[in-house]
Parts: sequence; structure tokens; C-alpha cells
Amino acid sequence: MSQASFDPQAFRAALGTFTTGVTIITTRGDDDTPIGVTANSFNSVSLNPPLVLWSLAKSANSLPAFETGRHWNVHVLSADQQALAASFAAQGTDKFGGLELEPGISPAPLLPHCTARFQCRTAFRYDGGDHVIFVGEVLAYDRSALPPLVYQAGQYAIAARKARQEVRLGATPPPECSYTEDLLGYLLGRAHYQMLFALRQLLASHALDEPAFFILSTLSVRDRLTRDGLNAIIGYTGFEVTARQLETLEGQGYIAREIDGGVARYVLTADGREASLRQIAHAKAVEQDLADVLGAGDIMVLKLLLKRLITTTDPGLPDIWAADDGASPATA
Amino acid sequence: MSQASFDPQAFRAALGTFTTGVTIITTRGDDDTPIGVTANSFNSVSLNPPLVLWSLAKSANSLPAFETGRHWNVHVLSADQQALAASFAAQGTDKFGGLELEPGISPAPLLPHCTARFQCRTAFRYDGGDHVIFVGEVLAYDRSALPPLVYQAGQYAIAARKARQEVRLGATPPPECSYTEDLLGYLLGRAHYQMLFALRQLLASHALDEPAFFILSTLSVRDRLTRDGLNAIIGYTGFEVTARQLETLEGQGYIAREIDGGVARYVLTADGREASLRQIAHAKAVEQDLADVLGAGDIMVLKLLLKRLITTTDPGLPDIWAADDGASPATA
Repeated sequence: MSQASFDPQAFRAALGTFTTGVTIITTRGDDDTPIGVTANSFNSVSLNPPLVLWSLAKSANSLPAFETGRHWNVHVLSADQQALAASFAAQGTDKFGGLELEPGISPAPLLPHCTARFQCRTAFRYDGGDHVIFVGEVLAYDRSALPPLVYQAGQYAIAARKARQEVRLGATPPPECSYTEDLLGYLLGRAHYQMLFALRQLLASHALDEPAFFILSTLSVRDRLTRDGLNAIIGYTGFEVTARQLETLEGQGYIAREIDGGVARYVLTADGREASLRQIAHAKAVEQDLADVLGAGDIMVLKLLLKRLITTTDPGLPDIWAADDGASPATA
Repeated sequence: MSQASFDPQAFRAALGTFTTGVTIITTRGDDDTPIGVTANSFNSVSLNPPLVLWSLAKSANSLPAFETGRHWNVHVLSADQQALAASFAAQGTDKFGGLELEPGISPAPLLPHCTARFQCRTAFRYDGGDHVIFVGEVLAYDRSALPPLVYQAGQYAIAARKARQEVRLGATPPPECSYTEDLLGYLLGRAHYQMLFALRQLLASHALDEPAFFILSTLSVRDRLTRDGLNAIIGYTGFEVTARQLETLEGQGYIAREIDGGVARYVLTADGREASLRQIAHAKAVEQDLADVLGAGDIMVLKLLLKRLITTTDPGLPDIWAADDGASPATA
């Protein structure tokens, strides 16, 4: 596509394929007003002297403040600061209302809970077409361990680290066009069963199997379910809750039956609740061990994608955490 | 941390928290030599006129070529071009050896298979401390649908889109400190069973249950397994392959038994192979439907993270795709 036919929207979309972090850049106006804009044009320039740059539209309302104010702060936003990014990208809102500011080396507002911050003084201003390029000398900086927010193709995102080498489960490349380790269903199944594998010893010590685990977990969130109610929640796993299973769990002292208008409803006993809490604590410990290896950011991405997969493939399961069918939600 | 105590490594690490894409920028030297460097300092500057920028160390060997050569091409690398990025980041290698180049509007080398490309002419060169800032006018550009490569905290990465709103499975925020939708084990289980749910109708039409599906899938990759061999591969799922199950599958005509030195080994029959292929095709179709909704990039990230989770939590499963225990791998 030659310049003559540059469509601004298509050009912007092509530029948007270059991934960036998201920053908020702040300064103070002549009248001491705090000023802040969301920018993804930030980048590092020089280590010695320490310089960074970003660019601001010549049409921006905030341009005069940045041109006269010599100090400004760059906040590399963390993954949880998406709402802040949106707020500072909007026009005319009271962006600083309700925000706590931290003391910095200059009057420029310093926001908390970021991934990194750079306190700068303008070193150069350069012409950049319809933008001004600000090059700032970094006077102070700090960083946290919070995973950063990412911007790609016009959407907020989070990044998952790639391994240096492609991750392969098997030593031998599997044949193409058959059942391979690249089948999502295989990967999900294997990941699920391996996580459950770590829990199985604990279940066995309670003389419990997987369906029993599902029943106790469900009752820990939703007490007083009937057998039909349990099956409506658990049935998609392929396990059917049988009357005999419930009798066994009753005999083991984990659950109790209440007759309510001729209908049997099941509740956890104190022992059942304790067993369930111990199982959940164990599952959380397994997850924490995993987070220690994979990193908190990658676990965050994994959960996000699993939730999107689940909402996309949901066969219409009841909302286990809602109290919409007459059963009262348990207070854990 | 004040400037006086700037540790170059710590400062670089703080700058590295700002996520970027990865580009290769190419030009030609005076002697027509192709020149290329990996850079993540690229960013857009202006829409009208169309300007982009990047910066190059004053100490770089390639600086003279970029200073004299007025044309250069920016390649926004795709997620699969990590090796190319590493090659162009290294010194002294024959970076262009074996690469096919495409014709561009200038002599600057144009590489294929990128996420986006910008063919530029230097508009301005600015001082940037130990770097030179190149601002280029974009004369032509193109883009593909390939997900882009990402760089964050010194590592290659891929980005997964965040939803505009937080994804919640349940309408009601679950109580803290109990069994919640934020438990990774729950999300993995639910995702797995929902994917399997989509397959269950097909399995039922073949009069098959899940353990039978696992047996047929395993035999489709590894023929001639004994019952012990099958259990070594499938056992971690919690399903035990029983002699009776194998008899049933034999009776259904899906598998056949071969006696080899007094040991029974199992193989797929033609019917069994056809049923297995149909199941795998169905699983692939479910995955494709999902990729149409979530996007190819997000599926790529999900698979990457599942593989990392699986290798981290692997209880020591045999490599199903290797032929290391006397069983010959099947040719599908």
C-alpha cells in the first residue's frame, strides 16, 4: 500500500500490531493543577545518560503544561490498573479525584501501585509531525513485582513468557494430522488430571474418590441441595451422583440429609466441612507451588484464558455461586 | 533511587518492565551489503505525516549504514519469528544467509512472514544520549493476521487479550477464602469437562465412555500396548483400565488382542482406528470453533501455558509419543 492511499484507520491498525506497555504520564500545570495522560508511545532511549522518550499530540489540551513544566513522571501501569488507564485516556474527567499521591522529587503527581515509575526532567523536545517527542532525563525510578499491563491491537492484554525453546511434552515430535500434544483437549485433560493427581493422596486418606470430592466441594458453596440439584451442577463432568454415593458419604459422616417437604436435601457436617476446607487448602497450595515456578503473571494469564474458554463453551451450567433456586448459599 | 546510585543493570531491568513488540530494522550499506538489527525501541509518532521512530546505539557497527542509507524497513515480528529476532540481535553472524527477501520500494531488505512491515525514509535524526533517534516517514506498509512477538522483562512473550470487563463465571462474587472460581484447579477441571462434554455425544453414539476414549486415543498413538502399559499411560487420570473394559472394546470390534510371548498386547482394529480418528477430528473441530471466538493468538498462549503447567506438575508420565519400551509407535 503506497502512501497516497494511506487510510488513517488502516495505518493506525498496522501500527497497533506493535505491542506496548501502557503508561500514565503526569505533570503539574502553571496553576498547580495535576495533569495526566495515558500514553503507549513511551520507550527507553539511552542508559548513559539515562533517557526515555514519549510523544504527545500537538493538539492535546495537556501540551502546554508539558511544554512549560520541566518535570514529569512516567508510570508503567500494572495489569490491575486497566481502569486507571481508561480514565486517564478520557477527556475532561476529574482524573485525579480520589487518587492517593505519593511524594516524589518534583511537584509532578506520583501514582502508587505501578509496575515501574520514572521521575524525569525534559532533556529535549523534538518535532514529530503531528506530535511532539519529549526526551526526558530520568532522575529517579523504582519498580515493583506487579505484572505489567499490555496494549496490543487496540486492546488491553497481559503477556505470558515464551520459553527460550519450544515447550515439548514428548521427546519425539508427534506425527502430524493425528492425536498430538498440540490438541487443546489433550492439554486441558492432562493439566486437569495432573492437578487432581496431586490431590488424590489427600482424598484417599479421607476414603474419598473424585465424585465424592465434587459433591463435597459443591456443598461447601451451596448447602441444602437435592440429589437432582447436585446433578445439575456436577453432571457435565460425566459423573452422576447416585443415591448410593450419598448414602456412603452420609455413613462416613461427611454429609447429613434433611427432609424438607418430603424432599431430601444434603448439607455438610462439621467433619465434611473440615475435610472440604482441607482439600481446598491443598488445592491452593498446589496452585501456589505452581505460581512460584511459572510466575504470578503467567498464572493470571492462564486463569483469564480458562475463564474465557469456559464462558465460550458453557453448556448452560447453573451459577454455583448464585442463590437463585431456593437453596441458600453457604456461609463458609 | 536517585540518579547518583543508578546501577545500569537495575535501571535496565526497570525499563524492561515496559512491554514492547520486537522489530528487525534493515537497510543496505554503501557496498550494497544487507544490514539488519533487532530493536524494541520502535514506536509510532505521527499519523499525518505518517512517522515512526526507533533508536540505535551510537556504538553500533550498523550506525554508519543507517546514517548514510536514507531508506530502512521496520519488520514487526510475529510470534513464530523468535529465532530470527535472536539471530539479528547477535553480532557478526551472516544474518541474511538463507533468508528469502521480497521486493520493496527501496533497496532495503524486506523480510517475509512478519506481523506488519513499514518501509521508511529518514525524516529526522535526533540526539538521544548514547543512542541516535531515527524518525522515519512511512512510505508503504502492510500487515498480516499473524500474532506478534512480545518482549517483556528480558524475555520473549506472547500477549493474551484482557476482556474489557473482568471475566466472571458466576453472577455473584464468591465469598473469599473458600472454594471459588479463582481456584486454578476448578478452572482447569471445568474447562476440561466442558471440552469433553462437547465430545460426549459422539462417544455415546459409538457406545463408548471416557475411559474407553482414553484407551482408543492412546492406542492410536502407541499400538501393541499391554494392559499394564495402558495403565502406565492412563493411570494418572484416576481411571484404571480393567480386563473387563478391554474385553468389552474387543467385543465391540474396536480393539484386537495379540498374544506375544504369552503376553496380551492390544491394537486398534480398522473400526477402532476410524472411531478414534473421528473423535480426534471432532475434538479438533471443537478447538477450531473456540479459536474462532478467542482468537488464534489467545489459543497459542493457552497451549503454551498448559504445556508449562504440565511439565511443571508432571508426576513422571511415560512419553506417549516416544518408542522406548518395545512398543512400536503407530503410523496414523
